[in-house]
Amino acid sequence: MRYLHTMVRVRDLEESIDFYVNKLGLEQIGRHDVEAGRFTIVFLAPAGQKEAPVELTYNWDPEKYDGGRNFGHLAYAVDDIYGKCADLMAAGVTISRPPRDGRMAFVRSPDGISVELIQEGGALEPAEPWKSMPNTGEW
Amino acid sequence: MRYLHTMVRVRDLEESIDFYVNKLGLEQIGRHDVEAGRFTIVFLAPAGQKEAPVELTYNWDPEKYDGGRNFGHLAYAVDDIYGKCADLMAAGVTISRPPRDGRMAFVRSPDGISVELIQEGGALEPAEPWKSMPNTGEW
Repeated sequence: MRYLHTMVRVRDLEESIDFYVNKLGLEQIGRHDVEAGRFTIVFLAPAGQKEAPVELTYNWDPEKYDGGRNFGHLAYAVDDIYGKCADLMAAGVTISRPPRDGRMAFVRSPDGISVELIQEGGALEPAEPWKSMPNTGEW
Repeated sequence: MRYLHTMVRVRDLEESIDFYVNKLGLEQIGRHDVEAGRFTIVFLAPAGQKEAPVELTYNWDPEKYDGGRNFGHLAYAVDDIYGKCADLMAAGVTISRPPRDGRMAFVRSPDGISVELIQEGGALEPAEPWKSMPNTGEW
């Protein structure tokens, strides 16, 4: 067996690419617009890690995408969790669970998919403004 | 950035390990029972691919795990999609979307997580009983 991808559905493809690529930092490694099926799929992966992509599925005809509790999150390690969270906030992304412990944060995609960020190599020293920043909503 | 895992929640850990390990064929590469948080997490990955695990989260106190439309599926390539589907059926797993095209099948975990199976290396010749097997439910 070989892991291929995790697929999530997106309501607005441009908004989602803005989140996953411009804000989160994944790279687009493939895109297929399928006229016959009226859908587009886009594959996004960390730099140098094409074997672990997330697949965005965008159905051209609108659907409602509610979130269920059976799915938890996608998780990525980042080199500097404080810098990454600061960049995400500057880009308008709510840090649902700030990295108070220097180790772990959560944000949500435009469709409510939780994304966990973990400090590569272990926790940083707890630091403000993160240390005293409260949670926002659920993730 | 580095992909770490995809997390799904499970209602019954033993039933889920039976599905993901004994039936689907992933290997257990880690387990942490966290008394303080009253949860257990289990990491499962394809053989030789520890860098792409799924994390099962089992909360000791019962929750209801409904499925939302924003999450799609986990996908794995398999060497023999007909053999894999036959084994899964023999083990009592419903093939929600049989591999009629010799290429793609879907099953569901005990908690309703869709798992896509793709024939490694491209489609096999369409063959019975798969070719004429109808879909069962959604996936």
